[in-house]
Amino acid sequence: MRRAARLGSGAATMAPRSRTLVLTSRPGFANQTTKTVVLINGQQASFHSRPKLDSAAEATVIGGPSPLPEVELPEIPETPTKNKRVTIAEILERRRKAGRLVAPTAAGCDSGVFKGDSTGKPLAKDMSHHLSHEASIREPCKLKQAARHLKTPGIISLGGGLPCPEYFPINSISLSVPDYLHNPSLSPPEAHPTRQNITIGKYDTLPSAPDRKEYDLSIALNYAQAHGSAQLIRFVTEHTELVSNPPYADWKTCLTVGSTGALEQALRMLCDSSRNDSILTEEFSFATALETAHPLGIPTFGVPIDDQGLIPAELDTVLSTWSPSERHGRRKPHVLYTVPSGQNPTGATQGPERRKQIYDVCSKHDLVIIEDEPYYYLQLPPTTFPIAPPANTTEFLKSLLPTFLSMDTDGRVIRMDSFSKVLVPGSRLGWLTASDQFIERFLRHAEVANQGPSGFSQVILHKLLDETWGHEGYLKWLMVLQREYTERRNTLLEACKEYLPKEVVSWEVVRAGMFQWLRLNHTLHPDFRTKSILEIEEEIFDSCISKGVLIARGSWFRAELDLPPTGLFFRATFAAATPENMTEAIKRLGVAVRESFRL
Amino acid sequence: MRRAARLGSGAATMAPRSRTLVLTSRPGFANQTTKTVVLINGQQASFHSRPKLDSAAEATVIGGPSPLPEVELPEIPETPTKNKRVTIAEILERRRKAGRLVAPTAAGCDSGVFKGDSTGKPLAKDMSHHLSHEASIREPCKLKQAARHLKTPGIISLGGGLPCPEYFPINSISLSVPDYLHNPSLSPPEAHPTRQNITIGKYDTLPSAPDRKEYDLSIALNYAQAHGSAQLIRFVTEHTELVSNPPYADWKTCLTVGSTGALEQALRMLCDSSRNDSILTEEFSFATALETAHPLGIPTFGVPIDDQGLIPAELDTVLSTWSPSERHGRRKPHVLYTVPSGQNPTGATQGPERRKQIYDVCSKHDLVIIEDEPYYYLQLPPTTFPIAPPANTTEFLKSLLPTFLSMDTDGRVIRMDSFSKVLVPGSRLGWLTASDQFIERFLRHAEVANQGPSGFSQVILHKLLDETWGHEGYLKWLMVLQREYTERRNTLLEACKEYLPKEVVSWEVVRAGMFQWLRLNHTLHPDFRTKSILEIEEEIFDSCISKGVLIARGSWFRAELDLPPTGLFFRATFAAATPENMTEAIKRLGVAVRESFRL
Repeated sequence: MRRAARLGSGAATMAPRSRTLVLTSRPGFANQTTKTVVLINGQQASFHSRPKLDSAAEATVIGGPSPLPEVELPEIPETPTKNKRVTIAEILERRRKAGRLVAPTAAGCDSGVFKGDSTGKPLAKDMSHHLSHEASIREPCKLKQAARHLKTPGIISLGGGLPCPEYFPINSISLSVPDYLHNPSLSPPEAHPTRQNITIGKYDTLPSAPDRKEYDLSIALNYAQAHGSAQLIRFVTEHTELVSNPPYADWKTCLTVGSTGALEQALRMLCDSSRNDSILTEEFSFATALETAHPLGIPTFGVPIDDQGLIPAELDTVLSTWSPSERHGRRKPHVLYTVPSGQNPTGATQGPERRKQIYDVCSKHDLVIIEDEPYYYLQLPPTTFPIAPPANTTEFLKSLLPTFLSMDTDGRVIRMDSFSKVLVPGSRLGWLTASDQFIERFLRHAEVANQGPSGFSQVILHKLLDETWGHEGYLKWLMVLQREYTERRNTLLEACKEYLPKEVVSWEVVRAGMFQWLRLNHTLHPDFRTKSILEIEEEIFDSCISKGVLIARGSWFRAELDLPPTGLFFRATFAAATPENMTEAIKRLGVAVRESFRL
Repeated sequence: MRRAARLGSGAATMAPRSRTLVLTSRPGFANQTTKTVVLINGQQASFHSRPKLDSAAEATVIGGPSPLPEVELPEIPETPTKNKRVTIAEILERRRKAGRLVAPTAAGCDSGVFKGDSTGKPLAKDMSHHLSHEASIREPCKLKQAARHLKTPGIISLGGGLPCPEYFPINSISLSVPDYLHNPSLSPPEAHPTRQNITIGKYDTLPSAPDRKEYDLSIALNYAQAHGSAQLIRFVTEHTELVSNPPYADWKTCLTVGSTGALEQALRMLCDSSRNDSILTEEFSFATALETAHPLGIPTFGVPIDDQGLIPAELDTVLSTWSPSERHGRRKPHVLYTVPSGQNPTGATQGPERRKQIYDVCSKHDLVIIEDEPYYYLQLPPTTFPIAPPANTTEFLKSLLPTFLSMDTDGRVIRMDSFSKVLVPGSRLGWLTASDQFIERFLRHAEVANQGPSGFSQVILHKLLDETWGHEGYLKWLMVLQREYTERRNTLLEACKEYLPKEVVSWEVVRAGMFQWLRLNHTLHPDFRTKSILEIEEEIFDSCISKGVLIARGSWFRAELDLPPTGLFFRATFAAATPENMTEAIKRLGVAVRESFRL
């Protein structure tokens, strides 16, 4: 049932010429995530109900033109539901008007305060019927509820056991990073000609600090809220607006400990084995995702795919004709887990129309969509050479495929973003975007499951992404990565063309991610009538190992292990090996395939 | 049932004069934790089945004598089951013999290889009947199983999607830290006269690196095993030997994302709501721990306590007289959750004999003990002044109370350690010590729940603890903390003596941790006959707020909310506020209590 719409999800308007955004401190308590009180020049306020910004200036592009050839980028049609774009200039202006962000130790933060205008957008639909029993009965921490008293002026807290930062035995941290904001070179990090040295002190936020900052070690290394620091939430919220600008009012973000953990939390939030729940996914799906669901008593059911991944009509058929008796007694599913871009393992990327159709089927059948997008920014051009990079970050943003989030008028999408593939996997840091309702329940779990990501990770990523690069520099960096992975993909494809027997091996040019999916025509195998697909797969896999190449077997990714395999597949990554080794590896694979097929 | 004992839990002996410990690389796969293969000079080997080390030299004590007065430390009797101590010198010698640790990207690691001799120790008892259904059915990742092929010489991996470190946009990280190893000053970090600057490069482990190291950013910031890096596991394993030296052979360690997350994982590993499981704990227990259990459908039942915490005879009675019909239909519990040192919220610390008695009751009734010890190293001397610090790190180690782990002949203890209270909470990093059986099941979950702690946290802690301070410097740092918290505790106690009405408020001098528990004699309250304990508690709490002090209400920590409260308590921390503010806060509390009791 649709709840009544109202203007934005906040309360008051922004004070004119305000210069300081204060998130109320919770110095005495770890874990609390009570509703944020935003004080702007002492007045309670919210960003997202203020009048529209006047400024519509272009994004400040710092640095000279790109050194890459200016080639026309293949047009990707805009999805019909794609929203008005938010620009970096608007975000910078919003920040300027809001003033300094003050978010001390363990400050609560509602990401909504960092969003733009939500006027006219509907509220998310009520999705409470999708919650698991475990998720429904979670209650806020008692200690957290007490934290509201810390607003009392002059109060001294003997409440929560937070150590004093004077006992943190690290006085400062420095980083050396490439300067993608000011230097136009799009070389990868180690070849980049300009490096910046960033130092993070313990008390950089104090008024007495020489070059006063918004975040420091005394805050980042103490206990914090499970949702993550306001400082980094602001960045990912603005970034989400730049990319998706969700079309409903009460969307929120929170940090996660990476999408691996976020998926497990999401499944525990949505699925109950005792309710006969299950999830739908591509018929070949990320093995670890499947292995996350199964111990919870949640089976996975596959939906047929083509070269654009999940087929909407097939999804509709699966749902419309669902029969528990044919599905191990499971009721009609209410969750779809999908990797829309560079799907793991097939590498398939859903086109704009495909995404809209899938969303509509999910809306028709009232499914929650878990949109897992680790490879979203590794979208690769369709042709091999010449590489046609976007001319600037505005073009780059325009070139990106529409997200499910960008068409989510219902609030049924839970999007998982990760820094693992675009910065470093070791950050163990990502973020979730979903309706307020889902984010709130997710956080009640995060408070006891992990307390949010590492403070080291948070402060280092904040310094790099927000304070040093900014949105402009970060998007430039993503353009560098796009170019690098395009070259890697092309190297692998050239090797496939050169060394694989085309009479039995076929593939689609992969349009995103890190994986190339290879289909072998098993019906042409000489032992087709005497050996199973799995036996032939194993034979080729073992032969590859003996020839010195490790490649992933397609059967490892099957969503339903009790069904007979329908084809013979292998997955190859172009992320890890050097170009020379990739070529050599594909050559070895070619020999193994020829031997097995006796070509 | 006791399994057959064998020599250690490893396989072969150590090669003579070996200089390199190689943990097999898993460059192609995230998440895998297959059984470690340890290669020492090319031979498969294990540390813990080799002959005893010859060297018995004293720990290398670097730096001059302590500047603190040499006062006799109050004797704490050794527990009867305490094992032979392992010394830092033995560990240093063991490392010297083992040679360089080589553990590349995503290397698998069995912590057993870092342990000393286990000859003569029994194996842990089989505890599989304690596992939950979810824990029992977890299977290793398919992708991980394939990782064994990476041992094949010359193999090229197109298997796992690990990004190349050349795309990590951080070239180096530097830290400024106090030098507790070489400088004898025991000043807190900001006042310490000697600082060291540590730089972590991306490729410090390469043979070509000028000052070749064992860990670097290319490894730490890529995908890693859920158990954490071998580099940091080695440190915590050795540290666990120094402190506990568990008396059974097949104990292991693994890193965790902090004890908050570790507790939830442990509860999911051990408890099934559908099996009518529950857990026992102190009658007042950590609120967040209780809130972790309840949404899983796991009720908590309290065991009576005294000034040394949990009472063994009461625990025995609870278990011996357990009746499901009087306990909401729950079967006799099989898990005890306890905080033995500086218990939260009561501050109670179990003495050595108390611990042994509790262990024996748990052994008698076949309970798993979750030993949650965030405050273990904040053990405080009994008297207020003068402070009597240990003379050196050897004395410090000897002064520490025996852990449950140190008396665990059965392998029924799951010990959770954390760096939150002794380094920085923001590390979100701790470690688990338990039997191989429990660690293995715990890791199968960690692989999908969080993939282990942040790489930033791991590499920074490794550099600080292992490479810069070493065991000697880290123990000195813990001595600094012990002294600082003793002073803080004493400040709070002085204020209590000065400002609280002793006719109604009483307390024990807290012997560990961050919390002072205050008991108010509610029978002396003028409204004793007309108001409930909770009403009086709320009245005093509210009065405190209006007077400017936040203190935690005792009722927030009650293990069984459906029972009537038995007393009136408040919890005050001496960790967070400045000494002046602490004194002022207790003064305000005193006024509130006097007003309520009309004194």
